[in-house]
Amino acid sequence: MPLNYLMPTRIIMGKNCVIGQRNSFSLLGKKAFVVTGKKSARINGAYGDVTKALEANGQDHVLYDRVMANPTDICVCEAGKIAREQRCDFVIAIGGGSPMDTAKAAATLAINDISKEELFTLTFKSALPIIAIPTTAGTGSETTQYSVLVDTTESDGKTPKATGPAKRSITSSLFFPQIAFLDAAYIKDLSREITVNTAIDALSHAVEGMLTLRANSISDMLAKESLRLILDCLDALLDFPENPSSFPVDKREKLLLASTVAGMVIAQSGTALPHSMGYQFTINWDTDHGRANGLIMKSFLLWCQEKEKTIKKGDPSFPERIPKLLATAGMDMGKFVNLIEQLLGQREKASETELNAWSALPMKNAANTYIQPNKEEIERIFRESVG
Amino acid sequence: MPLNYLMPTRIIMGKNCVIGQRNSFSLLGKKAFVVTGKKSARINGAYGDVTKALEANGQDHVLYDRVMANPTDICVCEAGKIAREQRCDFVIAIGGGSPMDTAKAAATLAINDISKEELFTLTFKSALPIIAIPTTAGTGSETTQYSVLVDTTESDGKTPKATGPAKRSITSSLFFPQIAFLDAAYIKDLSREITVNTAIDALSHAVEGMLTLRANSISDMLAKESLRLILDCLDALLDFPENPSSFPVDKREKLLLASTVAGMVIAQSGTALPHSMGYQFTINWDTDHGRANGLIMKSFLLWCQEKEKTIKKGDPSFPERIPKLLATAGMDMGKFVNLIEQLLGQREKASETELNAWSALPMKNAANTYIQPNKEEIERIFRESVG
Repeated sequence: MPLNYLMPTRIIMGKNCVIGQRNSFSLLGKKAFVVTGKKSARINGAYGDVTKALEANGQDHVLYDRVMANPTDICVCEAGKIAREQRCDFVIAIGGGSPMDTAKAAATLAINDISKEELFTLTFKSALPIIAIPTTAGTGSETTQYSVLVDTTESDGKTPKATGPAKRSITSSLFFPQIAFLDAAYIKDLSREITVNTAIDALSHAVEGMLTLRANSISDMLAKESLRLILDCLDALLDFPENPSSFPVDKREKLLLASTVAGMVIAQSGTALPHSMGYQFTINWDTDHGRANGLIMKSFLLWCQEKEKTIKKGDPSFPERIPKLLATAGMDMGKFVNLIEQLLGQREKASETELNAWSALPMKNAANTYIQPNKEEIERIFRESVG
Repeated sequence: MPLNYLMPTRIIMGKNCVIGQRNSFSLLGKKAFVVTGKKSARINGAYGDVTKALEANGQDHVLYDRVMANPTDICVCEAGKIAREQRCDFVIAIGGGSPMDTAKAAATLAINDISKEELFTLTFKSALPIIAIPTTAGTGSETTQYSVLVDTTESDGKTPKATGPAKRSITSSLFFPQIAFLDAAYIKDLSREITVNTAIDALSHAVEGMLTLRANSISDMLAKESLRLILDCLDALLDFPENPSSFPVDKREKLLLASTVAGMVIAQSGTALPHSMGYQFTINWDTDHGRANGLIMKSFLLWCQEKEKTIKKGDPSFPERIPKLLATAGMDMGKFVNLIEQLLGQREKASETELNAWSALPMKNAANTYIQPNKEEIERIFRESVG
């Protein structure tokens, strides 16, 4: 059972933990570079808590609140430049995956001369320490070494490239946040759409994590527990209340923890085929990232189950993974995919041109999937998912 | 669900991982301080692999092989002095808990002026980086921030104090090894006695971890998986072969991983009452540490079960833990304690004087136990265990 496990982030969870544990970032320096999206960090109270904590610690900060959904290399270079000009000592990311992924790249750009072109190819030598405060329960970026960014090179510099894998993942152990603060208060008012989509994102991390070549004993332990936590919240998600703040707090907490633990999983395992396939929906249709993964999941899992049976016939020692996954979920495949179906609601439809174009693209994460799909199988999964 | 999780050690597991991954410690400096017990590190091949890896990396080393079982403050001060005189850059611990715990303290003593008297009271500011190579499957020290040492102050300087908690735990996040290398080859010839006792040690970490006040959602996930791994090996342990090297390799691997994961548990949760009680057997009778915990476990678990029922009557919302533990084990209490009983074999017996003296001692970990025992209850557990 070979394994290589690393997840050095301290996870602090609890009510008012940012203010309560403000001492834990008082040693990181005099000036923080705070990275957020346009509005939500102010509305959900996280930015307010951070400024209170920094003030109480006698620490300054500079706010960068121009992170868009699916942040580009241009955005992170701008953020890094400001952090450098302002001589910030550490970075605080508040938000979903986009601010966290931006903050990670900015943390290294702030102290290294790296061009936009080098961003996706260099091995980083240093980065400012990062604090992550997730305000959605899905990305898991608070416990990963990944920064997923849109590569705009060779495009018009504003929009992503028309073809090819435009969303790219940069990996550096320097990107593991030093501390992740989890306070469910920041997610208590999230809409049904965001709550469900981010829950599907976390679910896809747990499920895909178990179906990668890099999955190991520890990532599987964590994946199973994350899966159990999310499934515990499924009824609440399907029966989402009119008023989002009436969604049970204990379920919000479970989803937040499940998302962070699923981040610990993919920090080890990486993701599988659905992530690469789903990127096409996000890039082309602006589909939310979690939903995009969810759209692929049913067909992908049924394909895995079918392939396992075929492989098992030729090689009885082949270690099946789908039965392990379903045993953890405590249900059969039909029930499992049906629940995802209910969460997704009506599916998007792709044109024949889109289906053909996407099916011809290289799918990076296919190589990390425990059973490698061929071109025809990828096309079949695309067609079953959005055909 | 408040939590505070940290376990920054990289875990590398696999056949020949020390030599295969030798690059991962080539950046730690020119000279290693290698800490081992008297013989086993040479016999099991770990020391040979380390010297080969260091030589291939062009790194020097100094060997300190004078660690005794239950290392004293005197021993670690000697080790630290040599590491300092020899200007070592990093520390490599090879062995069970004793060399690892010695190495941790030596890593800070090597670069800080700390007297034997200050060892148990100071907050450490710095330590050399540590690499841990466990050669037993029980202590979990490779993934903890603890160094458990015998405090000889106020005694004759050689033997522990006659009364009071002579085994003391020093805690510092600097003590988390940078890397833990797990290669089951180093444990393949361990005798029945060592294999069983260390397995009981790991089991006690998983079980006690779930029964502490500091247990949290992540430590519980890990504890459950560690427990499942150990229980998977129980038949093999009970049916231990004449020739230790015939013990199934896959079970050795499972026990090694279970022990490391149980270390991750107690890094979060700490241990509970059995550890403090068991220390008395180790200090006074030289009982192996794992066996000492095991001797207490049956009576402790039955007491927990009984107390839970009583508390639940007065407070129906009290969250029981024993049913969760037994559900993970997939058996009832009778079967669970009977299995431990079979592993232990014939129990040691204490004299009336010993029972009275130990029952009057302060039990440090009682305060971290999820239900706090009073003096009478501690005495009862001592009497049921070794009376």
